[in-house]
Order: sequence, then C-alpha cells, then structure tokens
Amino acid sequence: MTSETMDTASVPETVPVVAVILAAGQGSRFDPSQPKQLVSVGKREVIDWSIRAFERNARVSDIVVVVNNAVRGAVEKIADRENYAKLRMILNGGEQRSDSVSEALAALSSAGIPPQAKLLVHDASRPFVTDETITECVRALNDRNAVVVAEPSDDAIAVTRDSGDRKVVEHVVPREEVVRLQTPQAFRFGTLSDAYRKASEDDDFSGSTNDASVLLRYAQQEEIGIVEGSVDNMAIVTVHDVAAAEDIAKAEALTAVRAMIGKMNTTGE
Amino acid sequence: MTSETMDTASVPETVPVVAVILAAGQGSRFDPSQPKQLVSVGKREVIDWSIRAFERNARVSDIVVVVNNAVRGAVEKIADRENYAKLRMILNGGEQRSDSVSEALAALSSAGIPPQAKLLVHDASRPFVTDETITECVRALNDRNAVVVAEPSDDAIAVTRDSGDRKVVEHVVPREEVVRLQTPQAFRFGTLSDAYRKASEDDDFSGSTNDASVLLRYAQQEEIGIVEGSVDNMAIVTVHDVAAAEDIAKAEALTAVRAMIGKMNTTGE
Repeated sequence: MTSETMDTASVPETVPVVAVILAAGQGSRFDPSQPKQLVSVGKREVIDWSIRAFERNARVSDIVVVVNNAVRGAVEKIADRENYAKLRMILNGGEQRSDSVSEALAALSSAGIPPQAKLLVHDASRPFVTDETITECVRALNDRNAVVVAEPSDDAIAVTRDSGDRKVVEHVVPREEVVRLQTPQAFRFGTLSDAYRKASEDDDFSGSTNDASVLLRYAQQEEIGIVEGSVDNMAIVTVHDVAAAEDIAKAEALTAVRAMIGKMNTTGE
Repeated sequence: MTSETMDTASVPETVPVVAVILAAGQGSRFDPSQPKQLVSVGKREVIDWSIRAFERNARVSDIVVVVNNAVRGAVEKIADRENYAKLRMILNGGEQRSDSVSEALAALSSAGIPPQAKLLVHDASRPFVTDETITECVRALNDRNAVVVAEPSDDAIAVTRDSGDRKVVEHVVPREEVVRLQTPQAFRFGTLSDAYRKASEDDDFSGSTNDASVLLRYAQQEEIGIVEGSVDNMAIVTVHDVAAAEDIAKAEALTAVRAMIGKMNTTGE
C-alpha cells in the first residue's frame, strides 16, 4: 500500500460506491447438476463470500446482486440469514454476462444513482476478493473513470486462430506485455452506462464476457487503468478449482482467528 | 489420448529426436543467491527433473543441456551421478534465451543432425513435463513442422501499454482465444535453424524469450500447432513457486511408488 493510499484512506467517499455482484451465469464448465455460485467452500456458499467481502469494506455503500431463477431462492435465503445491511437489490440477470450488467445499470439508473457514482462489477465465481483490492479499485477511480483488477502472467500468451478443426498460434505476446484479468472491474457509473447504451444501439454487438471490452469498443477515449489483484482472487471455473478454493478458505479462516486473538490481546492490555 | 495416438505409439522414430534443455538463464525474478535450476524439489535438482523426463521417454534419442558458468559444475556432477545414457552435450549458452538456442543449433549442425530431425526445446524451469506431453510433441511433428505445448487460460487476457509511468489496457482477448505457452516447443531441425539463421541476419532482431515468436517472424509460412500441456508443467519463476513444485514432486513420487507396487503385484501373480 503506497503512502498516497494511506493519506486518502480516511477521506469518506462523497458518491455512492456500488458493488454489482454477477451470479446469473450458467457455469457451463462446472458440474451441470449444481450451480457453482452455491457450492460451499469453507462452510460458506461461493456467492456469500463475495457479498460479505463488499459488505465489510468501509468504502462500499451499496450492494446489488444479479441472479438467475435457478439460484434466486437460495440467494434470498442467504440474504435473510446474513442480514446484510448494504444489500439493496437482488435482480434477475440475462442470457449473457453483458445482459446482466445492463439489467443492473438500468435498475441503478431508475434508483437515481448519479453518473459520478463508483461501480465495482464483480463475478461471484471469484469468492476471495480482498479488502485491499476493493479499496484500491475505489481509490483508483479518483484518477481514472475505468480500472480493472489484473495479475501478472507467468507465461507468455499465444492468441490462437482456427485452422481446419485445430487451433494454431496466431501470434505470441511476451508475458511482460500481458496481464490476466480478474474482477472487480470498476467504473464511474456514467462511463459504464454510456458505453453499454452505445453497445445496445449497435446491431453488431453480440454480448461480452467482459466490461473492459465494452468500454474499449464504445468509449475509446477512456484509458483503462490496472489495479493489482492477488493470486487468492481466483475464479472457480471447473470442479477441479474447488480444492484450491477450500485451501484459500482455510487460510482466510486462520487469518480471521489470528486477527480476533490479536484484538482480544490488545483489548486485555 | 486419441486412438490415432495409440495407433502410432509403437512405430519407431526414423529420425533423431533431440531434447534441448535450456538452463543458462539467470532467473532474475528468483532468489539471486541461488540458481533456480539447482534448487532441490522432491530431493532432486530442478534441472535433473527435466533431464530424467526426456531420458525416460522412449521416443527421445538424444539430450543436449545448455548451461551457464554458474551452474556448469553442478550440472556436470548431476550427469556423472545419474549416468544418463542419452545426454550427449553440455553446452555453454548465451546472454539471452535465443542465444542459447542458437548455440544448441550450431552444435547440432556440426554434429551432422539431419533437417528432418525432431527438436524439443524445453525450459529447465519447468521440471514436471509429463511423458505424455513429450510423446505428443514428437508425434505432432508428423503433421506439422512446429508445435508448442500450451494450456487453456481461465482468465481473459489484457495486452497492456505504457501510459506515463503506469500500464493501461491496450486491448482485451477473451479466454477462449488465448492459450498460456509452456514448453517444450517442438520443431523439425531444419525449420527452426532456418528461422534462427534469418534472425541472426536481421539487425533488428534483439533476441527472444520464445522460439515460436522467432518462427512467426522469420518463417511465416509455418503454421504452429498446439499440444495440450498439463497444470503440473508449471514454471518455477519466483521463490513462491517452490512450495507448489514440492507438492507436485510429492504427488509424482507417490505415483511412481504405486506404479512399482502395481508392477510387483503383476509379476507375483
């Protein structure tokens, strides 16, 4: 954390800071018999980890969760059980990720959110977003209208193309010149909703798995900054990722217990 | 493994199959006080894992190791200790990865290797290349003159550019259209040496961390195929990667013991 971050850490936000958590995906590469949003890791549903992370962050003022019909009931039960103070809406999403983002933008617009509001769009499949990452996204929007959380790549990347029924290498990008995108991706509300409005007016727009891509196409004047993520901020994509997620959940629990003991000791002195 | 692979598995190779193992790097992101090639994981030096993997593969006929002066003595000791039958040369490499590949190509050319020979260029920093991956690289060179081992990406990738002192997103590539490059990268000897010869005649060529990149630039007519790698085929880049490597080494040892017990049981019957 830079000293600049420390200096501004105590300055309260003057605009709403809204987390939009996307949990409407079908998770086509996961076990089709169970929605990955609801899989339990560390005794807590995957979706609940994200909601908790944003609920606990001091900068975040409001939380919107976007669901599909298959998970709505379960997410409502979690909301009742946990009684999250910042959770404002549970919305139905759409077929594609960008449809779900559009639903959230429309609902927030109807709720009268100002264009300067800060929006953090997060995939529920990444349960372990850290408090530092959330805070840094919020802070970084003071310098730019758009930032993405990303990690360096250990490997060079090849962009592929189809050749007959096989994929071949189209070109290679050295690892120094690429980052692996995580979420949140964070935007001023006006910036993201303008880009999505333009996308909705474009017959060629066929949906996107990625808000940064929408911005690059429809708001080309905006530079998209990069906030460093963490290896813990992994995506649960296949059932094989659940074991790694359990390990991270265990480490998180340990850290929480240690913090609590530390606090008790301090209080006792 | 496809049935096609099974059918050709027993056909002997009619050309030399040479593994070139690159261990001349400085490992600038690793602990500067110890060369990562020599770090012990699972009671075996990182470099030794690779040499063993190629020694044990039935298709590989010859092994060349490229070293720097800091590790030469240790690698020679390992070679004496293990008495590898296929290890032909321990060469001194160059400043950059592509210099080391050039040294190996020159030495192989002097040794009279035919242009049809199959070359597997492998980074010693990836100790756990599997036997299946090696075999599939060798087989794939029957269909093409160039293939790379790569893994799918769980994340979308952003190609970055500098904006002032910060990196920003230049463009985004969806995860379906990218793969993460591993090694080996495998080539017909003539194909790779032609590309490197052209590179050496080009004053603009400033070295490369990647053989596929050299081919894409100097042998544009060659389609580069993709052989699926494995998650175990990780690169040891920083000291933080050693713990994950230890886990894989443990799992490998367990598999080896199980295979041995299985063999003893079969023999006993």
